[in-house]
Amino acid sequence: MKKKVGKRTYHFPSCPAVVSYANAVGKKEGDGPLADTFDHIFTDTRMGQKTWEKAESEFQKAAISKALEKGGLEVSALDCLLAGDLLNQCIGTAYAARALALPFFGLYGACSTMAESLILAGMLVDGGFCERVCAATSSHFCTAERQYRTPLEYGSQRTPTAQWTVTASGAAILGQTGTGPYLTHATIGVVTDWKITDANNMGAAMAPAAYETLQAHFEDTGRTPEDYDLIVTGDLGKLGSELVRELFRRDGIELGKRYQDCGVLLFDLDRQDVHCGGSGCGCSAAVLNGYIFNRMRAKQLERVLFCGTGALHSPVALGQGESVPGICHAAAFFNYKE
Amino acid sequence: MKKKVGKRTYHFPSCPAVVSYANAVGKKEGDGPLADTFDHIFTDTRMGQKTWEKAESEFQKAAISKALEKGGLEVSALDCLLAGDLLNQCIGTAYAARALALPFFGLYGACSTMAESLILAGMLVDGGFCERVCAATSSHFCTAERQYRTPLEYGSQRTPTAQWTVTASGAAILGQTGTGPYLTHATIGVVTDWKITDANNMGAAMAPAAYETLQAHFEDTGRTPEDYDLIVTGDLGKLGSELVRELFRRDGIELGKRYQDCGVLLFDLDRQDVHCGGSGCGCSAAVLNGYIFNRMRAKQLERVLFCGTGALHSPVALGQGESVPGICHAAAFFNYKE
Repeated sequence: MKKKVGKRTYHFPSCPAVVSYANAVGKKEGDGPLADTFDHIFTDTRMGQKTWEKAESEFQKAAISKALEKGGLEVSALDCLLAGDLLNQCIGTAYAARALALPFFGLYGACSTMAESLILAGMLVDGGFCERVCAATSSHFCTAERQYRTPLEYGSQRTPTAQWTVTASGAAILGQTGTGPYLTHATIGVVTDWKITDANNMGAAMAPAAYETLQAHFEDTGRTPEDYDLIVTGDLGKLGSELVRELFRRDGIELGKRYQDCGVLLFDLDRQDVHCGGSGCGCSAAVLNGYIFNRMRAKQLERVLFCGTGALHSPVALGQGESVPGICHAAAFFNYKE
Repeated sequence: MKKKVGKRTYHFPSCPAVVSYANAVGKKEGDGPLADTFDHIFTDTRMGQKTWEKAESEFQKAAISKALEKGGLEVSALDCLLAGDLLNQCIGTAYAARALALPFFGLYGACSTMAESLILAGMLVDGGFCERVCAATSSHFCTAERQYRTPLEYGSQRTPTAQWTVTASGAAILGQTGTGPYLTHATIGVVTDWKITDANNMGAAMAPAAYETLQAHFEDTGRTPEDYDLIVTGDLGKLGSELVRELFRRDGIELGKRYQDCGVLLFDLDRQDVHCGGSGCGCSAAVLNGYIFNRMRAKQLERVLFCGTGALHSPVALGQGESVPGICHAAAFFNYKE
């Protein structure tokens, strides 16, 4: 059966199943509207560690361990781990992978990594290589903000377009058999650059990539937004997701309520002082591997298009006069095999 | 056909073919013993750019473009690009991917990335998803040394155990059909940590991972070192590769001349003042996608085990008292399908 559909979309004939999933978040995230969809809410976001980076590894380990536990699986039931995070050299992930002692492929797709890891995991499972693969990502407010922007102690004022890097991790186990939801299609992202140079406006940097990948997905599959109960980006925030709506409006397409964004869903934007909403590859990971998959299993959603959006933002490149390109990978999950 | 062999080795039943390959190196690399195996030797290692980081992107673009040209292929013949580098946020790769406008999966496996990208590319091709995939990596002395160690202008004295980050890129195009060599097996790496904390001794940090993955490969496949004409690590350098020999000697196995290291092959260690040899994910990429594949196509080598070795070294983690774990992925290339 031909797996490539159109230019950059793939069909997974065996429809790899979400065998299990879990998430772990920090205190602020646990105070938000999705509180009851989190497996762990850690009020000590340092996780008893000496550094924030080590804490981030603990979040990732907690999410992966919980996904195994919820699925009644031992670590040895996994063929490999596909994971990444936002830190230089992806150390949140590297030290978590060391603790798990699993065959490991490291990924870097900025905030698109949850979608990237799921799609590659799906290809390894559908391709007959692996029986079960874990896909995971994490981010941490305290590790990301100081690496990408300013030292936390500096207390820099946040601009209205800023998003709040979420302290969280999410993990999904994809397998050849399981109760679902099922990964049915994926559209691979292309690096897209509309020349944004503001490190505090990542939503605008990523929105063009989301628009571009969604367009490609609809063109390749012949589907329309109405074919999905939920199209969810992660994480454009309020401004970036409004830009996506506006870009589609110009094409005569109204995305309406079926389109949402993980960064907007995770926080109460009026109450939690997060400006444009959440970001960080732990954000979409925690929302997908909780709120969204929960709603799918409860049959409140049947067809979801999960669009991981990453800003390939580098402080060094920005300082050298470069712009921030974005990338977006889309993964379609259905409650039935298709 | 069962694709998993033993604990963490995979067989590729269709044996994805090396359709084309190319490399691009800097002046110092071009002065070394492998000079006649390089497609491009750029004496201006800044590639006419304003910054070294932008230059690294140019190296990667040059290697990928040359691989396409040598294969008589347009960019549109590729289904996707799997690539990475050593820079924070992998910007050498991100901006190269932007220029190519290809569906793109970003990887981070430190110096193991060439092997990681080839193995995942092989799984995408063998799994029936992609017809042709490009796997590529790059490194640059001037971008890596200042990011991982000290500013170049500081002129820090190099310790005897130090390796020289190679300025180079290599790219391979794997496809469903082609003249070969063929990817037949791969063993996926596990993060291995023998508690090395010296940022100037990466060979020692990676050697245990190479030993561990080679052991797993032999155990999973039932093969012995004698089943290969060449077992090549990339890049442990002189010290690290001696450690691997010694570890196997303790098991009663003499690796002998069939075992070599890309970091030792690329430079003349006596003449070129590189201490323990080359490193950086461009090193093994340039040696594989030139010297090694050339020798395979010339039938001087029939069976090669390419072991990409990465030090998951982070200056931040080291500063926080962490050690440097290593990872090694092994990919077996044969001149015939098996």
